Amino acid sequence: MSRKSKGINAEREVVHSFWKIPGWTACRVAGSGSMKYPAPDVIAGNATRKLAIECKSTKSNYQYFEKEEIKQLLTYAEMFGAEPWIAIRFNRNKFYFLRPKDLKKTEKRFAADLELSKDKGYLFEHIT
Amino acid sequence: MSRKSKGINAEREVVHSFWKIPGWTACRVAGSGSMKYPAPDVIAGNATRKLAIECKSTKSNYQYFEKEEIKQLLTYAEMFGAEPWIAIRFNRNKFYFLRPKDLKKTEKRFAADLELSKDKGYLFEHIT
Repeated sequence: MSRKSKGINAEREVVHSFWKIPGWTACRVAGSGSMKYPAPDVIAGNATRKLAIECKSTKSNYQYFEKEEIKQLLTYAEMFGAEPWIAIRFNRNKFYFLRPKDLKKTEKRFAADLELSKDKGYLFEHIT
Repeated sequence: MSRKSKGINAEREVVHSFWKIPGWTACRVAGSGSMKYPAPDVIAGNATRKLAIECKSTKSNYQYFEKEEIKQLLTYAEMFGAEPWIAIRFNRNKFYFLRPKDLKKTEKRFAADLELSKDKGYLFEHIT
């Protein structure tokens, strides 16, 4: 499966999870492509909460995030009045939801591994 | 241009308009395709307001809306806590923003024409 297809599948799985919870909505945001504005991968929300979510699924034990990607998520979330979240799944594990501030900071990028995600992250059922 | 491309262009134009206003965000929602959940074409918002928008552009003087399309817009907007809007452009005119309740009701569908849009609708600068 291509990297793009894997990304879309991760987004779809996150969207499905929200729709299973009464009162919650979620949708995928159309690809950056020709639109050069900050945007998350998924927007979820109910009558009182709005979540801007960046989704990743990886077979590796480590996931990097470009600084620009996280910056855009934070920019969008602040402007839209939403909570910024990273949804990340490492091989065969459930999605963990992390706050951007809890990512590891390397010199040029942000990163997360399974250990950090279990330590600082939340399972889906704990963020809704 | 295909009907789909015209639809996407209309959505992009609406998205661009919002980003020109300080404090506002907007993004296109990824196509219904394999996701069978209610969703608008565009989600716009700032820190205090959220808009769920269905976008249409037509060369005709008349635009029909399937009841299901409007129902899904209203469902999504109510669940997400957003204002439901129809953005519609008739040939060579500006976009008019209409509330779903102001559409004409035919037996099987909803509809709008330029006259109705000018009478009941708002120009972009009046809804932001």
